[in-house]
Amino acid sequence: MPDKVLVYSRFPKTQLTRFGECYELLNAAGQRPDEAFAPEDIADVRAMIAAGGSPLGADVMDMLPKLGAIVCYGTGYDGIDLAAAAQRGIAVGHSPGANAASVADIAVTLMLAAVRRLPVADNYVRSGDWAGRKPSPMMRPQAGMRGRKVGIYGMGEIGRKIAARAAAFETEIGYFSRTRYDLPYQYLPSLEALADWCSVLMIAVRAGADNVNAVNADILRRLGSNGFVVNISRGSVIDEPALVAALTDGTIAGAGLDVFAMEPHPPGALTALQNVVLAPHLGGHTLESHVAMQDCVLANLEAFFAGRPLPYAVKRG
Amino acid sequence: MPDKVLVYSRFPKTQLTRFGECYELLNAAGQRPDEAFAPEDIADVRAMIAAGGSPLGADVMDMLPKLGAIVCYGTGYDGIDLAAAAQRGIAVGHSPGANAASVADIAVTLMLAAVRRLPVADNYVRSGDWAGRKPSPMMRPQAGMRGRKVGIYGMGEIGRKIAARAAAFETEIGYFSRTRYDLPYQYLPSLEALADWCSVLMIAVRAGADNVNAVNADILRRLGSNGFVVNISRGSVIDEPALVAALTDGTIAGAGLDVFAMEPHPPGALTALQNVVLAPHLGGHTLESHVAMQDCVLANLEAFFAGRPLPYAVKRG
Repeated sequence: MPDKVLVYSRFPKTQLTRFGECYELLNAAGQRPDEAFAPEDIADVRAMIAAGGSPLGADVMDMLPKLGAIVCYGTGYDGIDLAAAAQRGIAVGHSPGANAASVADIAVTLMLAAVRRLPVADNYVRSGDWAGRKPSPMMRPQAGMRGRKVGIYGMGEIGRKIAARAAAFETEIGYFSRTRYDLPYQYLPSLEALADWCSVLMIAVRAGADNVNAVNADILRRLGSNGFVVNISRGSVIDEPALVAALTDGTIAGAGLDVFAMEPHPPGALTALQNVVLAPHLGGHTLESHVAMQDCVLANLEAFFAGRPLPYAVKRG
Repeated sequence: MPDKVLVYSRFPKTQLTRFGECYELLNAAGQRPDEAFAPEDIADVRAMIAAGGSPLGADVMDMLPKLGAIVCYGTGYDGIDLAAAAQRGIAVGHSPGANAASVADIAVTLMLAAVRRLPVADNYVRSGDWAGRKPSPMMRPQAGMRGRKVGIYGMGEIGRKIAARAAAFETEIGYFSRTRYDLPYQYLPSLEALADWCSVLMIAVRAGADNVNAVNADILRRLGSNGFVVNISRGSVIDEPALVAALTDGTIAGAGLDVFAMEPHPPGALTALQNVVLAPHLGGHTLESHVAMQDCVLANLEAFFAGRPLPYAVKRG
């Protein structure tokens, strides 16, 4: 008999195939486990797979009396109540770095597309406006990348990969993070100082309670009218109404966003703007990063059921 | 009296401001000079400013009996009949490298946007399909950049800048050009060998009679079903009907195009495709590259009227 694993969040079926080959999956697909399944079906569930952004608190943990491991598919684990898990002796694992290259690629894709207004350009060609030589204020030449200062908020694995990529565009790189590292980039001592210094702010910080709405109206004003914000972290890090206001009144020039305060429901005031580039939280969604994330999930589950510590455990602190 | 300068091609007025401060401009704006102006107005014109891609042959040169200099705004000069100019003792200048960073940036922007399907993603969010959780086959995870082989056709200043940028995305870089350079990238001895080797083909070659339709159905077949083509050179380098066919039947995965066979009229069969990213020939159109291109135009004109050789003369051969 294969071990039972509860799938807590909603995942595309293709992403569960490899897990189903090793375990008996109970797929709650985003429903509460006690609504999706009868108590006797989940009474003996010892492990679950979750998307790290899905809210998962003490109430859910207590629906599964035998729960010993929460394994996040992906690098994030901001939805998990780590204190509640620790109190209950539940191990929490994730997939550190597995999707870092893919996420960093999307960050730079959004940066370039926002600065060069690519979706507007693509639409200008497709609509026939180019062929009709229709004047377009949005298509006037803008400042490009060369010589820009790119500021990275958060210098984990994704932040470093963003830095390496963005530097190739003849830019200067600076960063702010709680820790100053031995890196060939300028360190700014605060998010305020970073926003004063740069004209592209790349949000690569791990989301948490300490940085909710950290990128607020003040930070956006410091970024300035030639400034861009790119967010591939979590929507919670930006004060989204302040961002919409700054984009609407020209306080900043544009934004590239893969994440939103409430997914999948970005506000209409944001999706109506022409100076933003939007993506449906697809940063980590390449074939190679899914394989790498699944490798981490499987390694965590295998170790857990063998009674060993999770090889990719969340580090608390 | 300022010297007269004929503006041969159609330019936005803002791009002519600095020239108008130094010269008396006769702006033909894309019309034949002998239709735009009376013979006596252009009889004493000694210099003209042209877009390098505008066809400019012996017939036009002979409308201006005193013509001594054709100064191209931009790096390209493929529209100019250099032999006819040489026969008439007309110097030809351009703006070498002035827009190389901006063009290389667009090449990489198009590469990333095509590989990660950014316009489809942006539209998926804006349309509400993401909020409605509407299934989208185009949004399924695809192979990303990491580990890809990026092949660069042409290794001039723009090709080198593309190589430096693309390498930052954890890719391998190879190139084919007539000349093998001392560069840290793999040299492939032919365009065929390059297409066999790579899965992203970046066209950065200087367009000319020797490479019309060089990227044809055979090259696209060699690139393969996971392959992408990016063109920021000239539309003439690609066999455009073969490209449309290859994109339609899955011979290749996608394309990013800033240039087209007949601008501004890309074929409807191309603009209807979802697996392409399109831009209205804006590669060089950043504020900083316009300033740099204008610097070259002004330096060429100043030298010509002072009787000196053009500092940015086209090198023939």
